[in-house]
Amino acid sequence: MATTTSAVPPLATLNTPNSATTMDEKLSGNFLTLENPVFCCFLFWASVLVIKMLLMSLLTALQRFRNKVFPNKEDLFFKDIEVQFDDPHVERVRRAHRNDMENILPYFTMAILYICTNPDPTVACILFRVVAIARILHTLVYAFYPVPQPSRVIAFGVAFAITIYMACAVALDVLKHI
Amino acid sequence: MATTTSAVPPLATLNTPNSATTMDEKLSGNFLTLENPVFCCFLFWASVLVIKMLLMSLLTALQRFRNKVFPNKEDLFFKDIEVQFDDPHVERVRRAHRNDMENILPYFTMAILYICTNPDPTVACILFRVVAIARILHTLVYAFYPVPQPSRVIAFGVAFAITIYMACAVALDVLKHI
Amino acid sequence: MATTTSAVPPLATLNTPNSATTMDEKLSGNFLTLENPVFCCFLFWASVLVIKMLLMSLLTALQRFRNKVFPNKEDLFFKDIEVQFDDPHVERVRRAHRNDMENILPYFTMAILYICTNPDPTVACILFRVVAIARILHTLVYAFYPVPQPSRVIAFGVAFAITIYMACAVALDVLKHI
Repeated sequence: MATTTSAVPPLATLNTPNSATTMDEKLSGNFLTLENPVFCCFLFWASVLVIKMLLMSLLTALQRFRNKVFPNKEDLFFKDIEVQFDDPHVERVRRAHRNDMENILPYFTMAILYICTNPDPTVACILFRVVAIARILHTLVYAFYPVPQPSRVIAFGVAFAITIYMACAVALDVLKHI
Repeated sequence: MATTTSAVPPLATLNTPNSATTMDEKLSGNFLTLENPVFCCFLFWASVLVIKMLLMSLLTALQRFRNKVFPNKEDLFFKDIEVQFDDPHVERVRRAHRNDMENILPYFTMAILYICTNPDPTVACILFRVVAIARILHTLVYAFYPVPQPSRVIAFGVAFAITIYMACAVALDVLKHI
Repeated sequence: MATTTSAVPPLATLNTPNSATTMDEKLSGNFLTLENPVFCCFLFWASVLVIKMLLMSLLTALQRFRNKVFPNKEDLFFKDIEVQFDDPHVERVRRAHRNDMENILPYFTMAILYICTNPDPTVACILFRVVAIARILHTLVYAFYPVPQPSRVIAFGVAFAITIYMACAVALDVLKHI
């Protein structure tokens, strides 16, 4: 009987591994879940940035219709116009859109990888919010209402620097796996 | 003996957690695995879209050789030609390729995040299939064989709307983590 | 007593599932963690590629200042210059940058999905290293110091072929989930 009674308690504790664990242990190496507040924060702001980025296409289309500038023959929705390029209003929006692709898309990948390295939650959430706001401001001062420099350079630089920081933090974290 | 016999059955059931669990419990918050049919469906169609997107580079190269239009001095594979831009056939493929980058790449990120929020499997799988087919049709009617509008607008709009839907669904899901 | 003693040993082994498991079992379907050496290797080289890609923006800016070619009115940092496009030095860097977006960004998505399908660790790590080095070489021979072909085509083709391979490997792996 003695062996049986001594064997049961450790089994019982092993059977309830989540009873007194920290967040880290609860996630158990899986950071891309809704249980991870850092990931939830990223989910929200990444969704905002995806919507913002896609709306650039509509803004380009709006400028094309407003200025009647279309790049394809099948797009000539009005009579007596020809395919045309290099309209300054359209090209400005397209440059802003391209800048989004150059910066937001690598940021998306980098941020997901950064979350998987279990960063400090407070720092990570602040970075996600700052990047999203900086990129929204970048669009406003570039594509919507051109504002004198250095407003655009600053908005660009903030998101740029944060992405570089994430990349360096991740690379240093896994340096031995080169 | 009575205590031992009564203690063993609950332990036994606790020790076989996968015996009668739902898919949700089996995944236990990790949705990016081959055990998740939603992720498997995305894996297939994302791979198809990556291949489709990369083939745009080859299509551009094909048009460059066919029309002998090269943008770099080191690319002049034929005698008596100069660097040249703005060939309509080449530029059409490049616009289609750019449109892919503007739409498919944010969709990739958004879809992965969407999968992590545990969406309805039937809805998610249908959306993945529809986006892939819409983007393939978009390429066909844009880069391969120009078709009168609104064929291209519809193909573009379907993938666009689904990505926006995913972004809104995810953002609303984690709204308190703003 | 006989029943109790026979029941305890299997319970005890079930309660210590990590005692003698392989790496596969330890990861238990979650491959995007620092415990997975394949993911760690990707983390490092993806970070390198993100930094490389973002630096293309700075290289473009450098060429813009060196040649005093700016695309927006608010960017005219020098007196007596006008907005200007089509400078060959600036456009060369922009083409290299665009090529990065066309190839590295789909590769990022594809590689993350590929990791989730539990590929052979040795093969996967070699592919990640080769892609990163090929894309760095592509930038050097395209944007930094133009080198006669086929150097650029080879650097491009290596990363291109590996991404296609990953996409095919993943697609075949989940073919029944079409």
